[in-house]
Amino acid sequence: MQQIWKEYQEKNKNKFLNELLDLLRIPSVSAKSEHKADMLTCAEAIKQRLLEAGADTVEIYPTDGHPIVYGEKITDATKPTVLVYGHYDVQPAEPLDLWNSGPFDPTIIDGKIFARGSCDDKGQMYMHIKALETLVQTNTLTNNIKFCIEGEEEVGSPNLGKFVTSHKELLKADCVLISDSAMISLDTPSLDIGLRGLSYIEVEVTGPNRDLHSGVYGGAVANPITILAKMIASLHDENNHINIPGFYDDVINATTEERALMAKAPFNEEEYKTDLAVKELWGEKGFSTIERTGIRPTLELNGIWGGYTGEGAKTVLPSKAYAKISARLVPNQNSDKIADLLINHLKKIAPACVTVKATLHHGGEPYITPIESNAYKAAAKAIEATFNKQPIPVRGGGSIPICSLFEKELGTKVVLMGFGLDSDNLHSPNEKFDLANFYKGIETIPYFHQFFAEM
Amino acid sequence: MQQIWKEYQEKNKNKFLNELLDLLRIPSVSAKSEHKADMLTCAEAIKQRLLEAGADTVEIYPTDGHPIVYGEKITDATKPTVLVYGHYDVQPAEPLDLWNSGPFDPTIIDGKIFARGSCDDKGQMYMHIKALETLVQTNTLTNNIKFCIEGEEEVGSPNLGKFVTSHKELLKADCVLISDSAMISLDTPSLDIGLRGLSYIEVEVTGPNRDLHSGVYGGAVANPITILAKMIASLHDENNHINIPGFYDDVINATTEERALMAKAPFNEEEYKTDLAVKELWGEKGFSTIERTGIRPTLELNGIWGGYTGEGAKTVLPSKAYAKISARLVPNQNSDKIADLLINHLKKIAPACVTVKATLHHGGEPYITPIESNAYKAAAKAIEATFNKQPIPVRGGGSIPICSLFEKELGTKVVLMGFGLDSDNLHSPNEKFDLANFYKGIETIPYFHQFFAEM
Repeated sequence: MQQIWKEYQEKNKNKFLNELLDLLRIPSVSAKSEHKADMLTCAEAIKQRLLEAGADTVEIYPTDGHPIVYGEKITDATKPTVLVYGHYDVQPAEPLDLWNSGPFDPTIIDGKIFARGSCDDKGQMYMHIKALETLVQTNTLTNNIKFCIEGEEEVGSPNLGKFVTSHKELLKADCVLISDSAMISLDTPSLDIGLRGLSYIEVEVTGPNRDLHSGVYGGAVANPITILAKMIASLHDENNHINIPGFYDDVINATTEERALMAKAPFNEEEYKTDLAVKELWGEKGFSTIERTGIRPTLELNGIWGGYTGEGAKTVLPSKAYAKISARLVPNQNSDKIADLLINHLKKIAPACVTVKATLHHGGEPYITPIESNAYKAAAKAIEATFNKQPIPVRGGGSIPICSLFEKELGTKVVLMGFGLDSDNLHSPNEKFDLANFYKGIETIPYFHQFFAEM
Repeated sequence: MQQIWKEYQEKNKNKFLNELLDLLRIPSVSAKSEHKADMLTCAEAIKQRLLEAGADTVEIYPTDGHPIVYGEKITDATKPTVLVYGHYDVQPAEPLDLWNSGPFDPTIIDGKIFARGSCDDKGQMYMHIKALETLVQTNTLTNNIKFCIEGEEEVGSPNLGKFVTSHKELLKADCVLISDSAMISLDTPSLDIGLRGLSYIEVEVTGPNRDLHSGVYGGAVANPITILAKMIASLHDENNHINIPGFYDDVINATTEERALMAKAPFNEEEYKTDLAVKELWGEKGFSTIERTGIRPTLELNGIWGGYTGEGAKTVLPSKAYAKISARLVPNQNSDKIADLLINHLKKIAPACVTVKATLHHGGEPYITPIESNAYKAAAKAIEATFNKQPIPVRGGGSIPICSLFEKELGTKVVLMGFGLDSDNLHSPNEKFDLANFYKGIETIPYFHQFFAEM
């Protein structure tokens, strides 16, 4: 097959790219209500592209939030079915002033597409549509492919669960295939076998009932920023362990063997530090960087604000201070349980001079892919076919909360075949996706379908 | 005199008020460059009002920042001269959503003028212009009055020093009179005999060189928000003493007598707590609330920001976090010395996983008014004439950095005759000034000029 696929893809290289660039021009930011219309535009675009690529039917399903695009190409009902999951929504682009080009004005520099969503996940999701097109146009599709492309991944998929539960028959498949993660590099291909879960909360600390003059009241009334800082400071101990009673209770510690295997993955600490321009790394004592981002739960401050943050100086003692805090979870930790733990802990440690409100933003469960599954084996074989190397199984640090949802509701295993890189600036200014990775993904995915159909 | 002044003021009550409201409609926010034109408009308005009130000459002096309005009414060069200082600039109005009416759309409710600057300092400064008018129109002015109304008080008066130093002859006076502070209440009049100094800095903590995905890098790279929180948390110890070596070195502690006198000032802790809606107060162990805001130095967080602060959730590990921090200083502490101490301390306690930049915003020296001075005595006598009560001398918590400047450059004592209230929401949403206080100020000030001229 290789030759016929390769020829088709080589001929349509520029078309594939231009179509992706058009998609990247739509500011489909799910977190911001002002982009509601853009979300619909983007869903419509995905529908059109799926139909053009050869899907039999495509439907836009409204939800209480942003719509879900479902499409399918059924070749032979007796053959295995792959459900491709992806998302067309993107993270907010702020801070805008740190972008070198417009986040929704995709710009190609040195073989990389710079745009919000280029990698996460429009670029990676689109590889699957172009793989479908390759298989259909070359008459080589032997299995069935379904697509479930949602618009709320970046806000925690609040409406996907209801959709999946009420459309089990529609979504029925023999495996779920997702490209929404990274590989080590094109030289060292890898497959994610684990993802961390997430508990994301927001905390509001209120001191006095109004902003005060810091000269008149300062020193006599609790400053909510100071109190919030003290609360945050207490969340990690001097070894950077998370200092919340019960936080680690459900963690299944990695075995010595697993840790030994992880230690073999290529990692250069000096290069890592240079890339980030930091003099020293920071993390939980007793664990390596790869372990800290893979097998250990973490607690990060995602945002903080309070008081006067504008130009110049204002001598205010503010009424309120806020923080966004999220924990990444490892297998056996439960997202709701940890969120409750966090919320209750913050309320408990707050001194009586302030009041604390803490609310859940969203969460997701940790996930492990079994490397004995047919889906994993097909993915590993596909990677080998196009990279000429066996992929390294790794535990990723990010979260795709819907993995455990699919497993629970559809009873199917999920395989995570990501083609991004850790250096793609996901969720950051100047997000990018290498053209080489984009094309390599389109090249590899048809093999996955072929091998999975043969298993 | 009383009757003739009272009659004139009673007749012109509404005119005085309407003129002030016009002044309050000009958004003269000195901290924000977008208001540069409004600052000029406001300076022009002050000039016109001074001329209308009877000043002989009024001049707008440009500076490197916002202009200074100087005016004078010289009656007899052999008579004492009072230099009135005030400011026409105001604090930023943010957060706007907490105002019940537009900050620059003055609204009168229950006998109070709600507007940014109503008390601090347009309303109080304007009392002096109306007092001049009263004296001129009733032909009762016996001394000389000079006005120095600046436009940069709220940003630390960066250009006033240069102006004063280069215009010593112009500004020459026998005392400086300022109404830019509060009294206890109309029932319990008071005069400020001390003001705290100020050191205001801004700190920037940089972790990685770009915003990162908190799932991919979290737990392995220092989060600047977490580090900044730990740094802030360490600035006060468990007794809420400021935990910076050397911070208290130069503090002259109040004597037992002085503390005993302060303890006699009317203060109801339950009312104070109810007004602020806090369950508990917060402050340095071993000191009362009045001491904490009067005779003790303090360290307050005026603002903090970093990471994602918008709607919804973003899983970012930010590159930078910022805070605005200011210290209030008591006699013998030096503003520059404390600023250096703060900046160096923050740099010193920063761990190697981040870099810290700290810069000075502005500062000012603490000040004490001697109660034996003629100016203080004239002020006390004026208060007694219109309130029928002796004023209580108090140490104010705020800062008017120019007091020590005037004393140093002009060799004159400053008297602080404030007619605001602590509850006026200075620097906060819904700043207000009671009409009763406004009119009481206009009534009292002519007595000051009369008594000072007679001393």
